[in-house]
Amino acid sequence: MTIAAVKVHDLRFALGPSAGSDAIHRDPVYSYAVTELITSDGLSGCGFAFTLGEGNHLVCQAAEFLASTLTGKSIGEVMAGFGSWQCGAANEQQFRWLGPHKGVVHLALASVTNACWDLWARSRGLPLWKLLLELPTRELLATLDFSYVEDVLSPAQAAALLEEEHPTRKQRSGITRSGYPGYDTSIGWFNYSDEQVAANVAKSVAAGFTAMKLKVGSSDLQRDIRRTRLVRQAAGTDATIMVDANQQWTIAQTLDFARQTKDLNLFWIEEPTHPDDIVGHRRIAGEIAPVKVAAGEHVPNRVVFKNYLQSGAMAVCQVDAVRVAGVSEFLVVSLLARKFGIPVIPHVGDMGQLHQHLVLFNHIALGHKAVFLEHIPHLRDRFTEPAVVSNGHYQTPVSPGTSCHLLAMNGQCSRA
Amino acid sequence: MTIAAVKVHDLRFALGPSAGSDAIHRDPVYSYAVTELITSDGLSGCGFAFTLGEGNHLVCQAAEFLASTLTGKSIGEVMAGFGSWQCGAANEQQFRWLGPHKGVVHLALASVTNACWDLWARSRGLPLWKLLLELPTRELLATLDFSYVEDVLSPAQAAALLEEEHPTRKQRSGITRSGYPGYDTSIGWFNYSDEQVAANVAKSVAAGFTAMKLKVGSSDLQRDIRRTRLVRQAAGTDATIMVDANQQWTIAQTLDFARQTKDLNLFWIEEPTHPDDIVGHRRIAGEIAPVKVAAGEHVPNRVVFKNYLQSGAMAVCQVDAVRVAGVSEFLVVSLLARKFGIPVIPHVGDMGQLHQHLVLFNHIALGHKAVFLEHIPHLRDRFTEPAVVSNGHYQTPVSPGTSCHLLAMNGQCSRA
Repeated sequence: MTIAAVKVHDLRFALGPSAGSDAIHRDPVYSYAVTELITSDGLSGCGFAFTLGEGNHLVCQAAEFLASTLTGKSIGEVMAGFGSWQCGAANEQQFRWLGPHKGVVHLALASVTNACWDLWARSRGLPLWKLLLELPTRELLATLDFSYVEDVLSPAQAAALLEEEHPTRKQRSGITRSGYPGYDTSIGWFNYSDEQVAANVAKSVAAGFTAMKLKVGSSDLQRDIRRTRLVRQAAGTDATIMVDANQQWTIAQTLDFARQTKDLNLFWIEEPTHPDDIVGHRRIAGEIAPVKVAAGEHVPNRVVFKNYLQSGAMAVCQVDAVRVAGVSEFLVVSLLARKFGIPVIPHVGDMGQLHQHLVLFNHIALGHKAVFLEHIPHLRDRFTEPAVVSNGHYQTPVSPGTSCHLLAMNGQCSRA
Repeated sequence: MTIAAVKVHDLRFALGPSAGSDAIHRDPVYSYAVTELITSDGLSGCGFAFTLGEGNHLVCQAAEFLASTLTGKSIGEVMAGFGSWQCGAANEQQFRWLGPHKGVVHLALASVTNACWDLWARSRGLPLWKLLLELPTRELLATLDFSYVEDVLSPAQAAALLEEEHPTRKQRSGITRSGYPGYDTSIGWFNYSDEQVAANVAKSVAAGFTAMKLKVGSSDLQRDIRRTRLVRQAAGTDATIMVDANQQWTIAQTLDFARQTKDLNLFWIEEPTHPDDIVGHRRIAGEIAPVKVAAGEHVPNRVVFKNYLQSGAMAVCQVDAVRVAGVSEFLVVSLLARKFGIPVIPHVGDMGQLHQHLVLFNHIALGHKAVFLEHIPHLRDRFTEPAVVSNGHYQTPVSPGTSCHLLAMNGQCSRA
């Protein structure tokens, strides 16, 4: 059973009016650059990177190039040395110039990597979270690339961390029955009216969510403050409330917002300013505590996460497995965050389909606290097996794979 | 005289045996993603981003998208508010997801930006360095985007810096007659034999160079150390010698190399480890002084440079105007570096064609010390007006524009 064909799909989905809008993205088209690996006996493994529409084809072209070395191999063979394969792909001697390890080429590596993990899990008949839990430590570590983070976390230290948490896994595995808590991002997209936001908060509370997030980052700080107050009033004092500025504030504006909302007991301020500005985030983190700085949605790789963590510049790590180099780099970043005692609460460019698996592994195997996982439902009907969220909790997926097959792939796939 | 057409050229040039090779790039194909802006009266402005071959077409496609908003405008109109245009292009609401401000989309912005500067200089009949010197401070600053660095350098502070240096410009302008010193990168590409390296050093010294650079970064540290000693012996005690590891060492390997070459009086160690690892570079900088850490070839934008400078993580700033968003972002980074007292010694993905203009401006207008400019001659015969280096010095260009037109564009251009 070898990989016989690689097919790349450029899938783009328009959203409803104002849905997905934030302080910078007024009209996003949620899109996936999908890599599909098709085996000689007809199994299909599929993974993707997320984009907002324009340029999705560039990621597709780059993914085609990176995946081309996989044909003719069995997925077991590929995954046995996947960390080395990934390091090689990330450092392809001409292609790496376009990054390195960021931007289009790295998104493409996410897409290919996630397809490999999906195919592997399907070939073993296991949902990803279960495969990850069942892999012996040595085999799991062989799927990861620790280069450039070894000064902080060597493979041996990662192994020790995994072994240390092993005896207490059982105490944490009840979460697969109770479900992983979710939080609601769709109450307050940037272009929703105040009335819509208030109505959405009520709906969200009724649906069992106790945590929700509002889009801020306006040039009119008073609008942001007014809407944050509105959410607090509508949700009540017990709700957990976060705001997301989508990188649109200066450091000074962020501090100003934090000062003027001190009484609102916010849980975090997300992406206050430029995602590359680690020194800026560190300053913000120091000044707004106990409100947390959340970041990671636009942090491209484990090296930048390492610097964020070393600097104390993020209090919540929002690594996204469809931004960094897929499941493998997500796990390296999760290990790093665990070492620094920082919770991983992913951004879900995948609509939570893939991340519902990953947070279960992080909680059970790495001992990460199960805080909650972002919930964005806009594309749920596009998946063959949409994540099930009931009473505010993700229900544990049971089908083999990573839950990332899309209906739109049907008819486009040439099964080899 | 408006921009009537945009043409993008994908130009790739094979090099001679082992030329351009380093510790990671064994077989680079020096390539340019060229944006050409053609006016209604037949003037052609041209700029590019540099790549190593594979994926050059991705940058071309992205440049086509970004340049599409320019047609129908005059270049004077475009440049009058170029800082705003560039900020808008860098933050195109869907496209920015693919960066932001890094990778393929940012290389594309470099290409388009440089074409605008070339067309503007040609339309005024001035070589770029002279245009830059003649622009009133207010007009110059209007071509720059200071967003996300304003906490360290506001436009007003930049204006003050420029005004402060103005009275002493004359003292520094003699450099346009004496020529800007160069250093030779082509003595020791990674795959050259020891004999070739020794012969090249002798040739380099005979050609008037007093500074030269060797490629290191081997997994065999003893090879690197042996070859560094060989260069010191061949070049003599007075020569300025640098080594370049092209990101291939760990922090520990870098420190080990520095310890074992303490007696060789190296001027800098370039790109010792991952270009995103600011914390790692800061540690290296602290431990290897007085040997300098040089970095910037793979630093994508002004925000990351800001963090490098704030952290004391680079002693030499190697910003490259065909990696960051072209001339405009190069100037912002040069202003930042000036503020922190760090010399700008660019990496020359452009073979020095564009940078020979920029270092003159940096020296005369910003008061940056004229250390030397990298010289890589491999593509010199590909340009319509190749940089002239004699007795180890760049001779000041006098033709209008940025010296970036390539012979291979002829025949490919559709003059509108």
